[in-house]
Amino acid sequence: MTKRILVVGARGLIGSEAASALEAAGHEVIRASRSSGEHVDLTAPASIEALFERIGDVDAVVSTTGVVAFKPFTELTLDDFRDGVGDKALGQIALVTLGAAHVRDGGSFTLTSGVLSAEPIETGTAASVANGALDSFAIAAAVGLPRGIRINTVSPSVIAEATGYHSSFPGFPQTPVAEAARAVVRSVDGVETGQIFSV
Amino acid sequence: MTKRILVVGARGLIGSEAASALEAAGHEVIRASRSSGEHVDLTAPASIEALFERIGDVDAVVSTTGVVAFKPFTELTLDDFRDGVGDKALGQIALVTLGAAHVRDGGSFTLTSGVLSAEPIETGTAASVANGALDSFAIAAAVGLPRGIRINTVSPSVIAEATGYHSSFPGFPQTPVAEAARAVVRSVDGVETGQIFSV
Repeated sequence: MTKRILVVGARGLIGSEAASALEAAGHEVIRASRSSGEHVDLTAPASIEALFERIGDVDAVVSTTGVVAFKPFTELTLDDFRDGVGDKALGQIALVTLGAAHVRDGGSFTLTSGVLSAEPIETGTAASVANGALDSFAIAAAVGLPRGIRINTVSPSVIAEATGYHSSFPGFPQTPVAEAARAVVRSVDGVETGQIFSV
Repeated sequence: MTKRILVVGARGLIGSEAASALEAAGHEVIRASRSSGEHVDLTAPASIEALFERIGDVDAVVSTTGVVAFKPFTELTLDDFRDGVGDKALGQIALVTLGAAHVRDGGSFTLTSGVLSAEPIETGTAASVANGALDSFAIAAAVGLPRGIRINTVSPSVIAEATGYHSSFPGFPQTPVAEAARAVVRSVDGVETGQIFSV
């Protein structure tokens, strides 16, 4: 069955690959981001509401967004933690909370967290906080979403194609972006819910 | 060695038991909370700074605080998520970020998260988000805190003595508050760091 799928963060490395993979699987994809395609800023609830007003109902929502400061722990400020949680975690949580009414029965949400929820790097504490919040959100929201709507997170290691981040993740496994996109397809077209797909 | 220990949330069930257990272990305990003892409100950075100005340096900081809304998922608002993360997660994170300069070499932080980071209940999604953020924070901050300062979370199931919560945690193991306090002592007097002590 062809699904109508909103991909938020579709201009990014994972988002663009996921959008292409979902189209290759036969689905209709609506691309959204802060800067191109359908405009949305997940930190502004009115922007999320306006997006769904424009595009109408969908079968699945995929989010690959989130801005978090990368700094050594002793340089991270309270604002860095607040902004990182506010953008990556609460932004994606807002997409689910406000978007659920626009997802059809049996649809799904797929959010993006990351390996730092469980494995630290020197500059990653703010990202760890956001990712930990998201993984736990998915576990909990999976039992609370109405009408059979599912939710999972995709939690990649550093992306192989994101070479600018490699030195911050010394010796970490590198996830080809195609593997992250494959996990998105598993979440959208599979039956699982409340899962953290570590790739 | 007698340690000088700040316990934030010392009026609560876990905090008061932890404070007593630490005194029984021979330590000096400074009790703080929003409402009694040394005043502190972890959501107000100036309040944290003022607390340390008054009490000076300590060997260990224990926090057992955090207010989060308990509601079914479909009734939780964005403000519930924002406030819960802001209070329980970012409040305790602020205590570490601002308090680290006032903790002596080789000291420690012990924060309180909870079982909902990994195991959902009907009304617990906002708490899950806060707890997940805290567990991941401890894992990451453990490698970034300076001068050998350690950090752990104590993650209890529903507390046996907190009978008002029992119906929200049907069939969950119930943690005697003394077990939670014992885990605090393990964190303070042991050598571990970056651990989630599930009790």
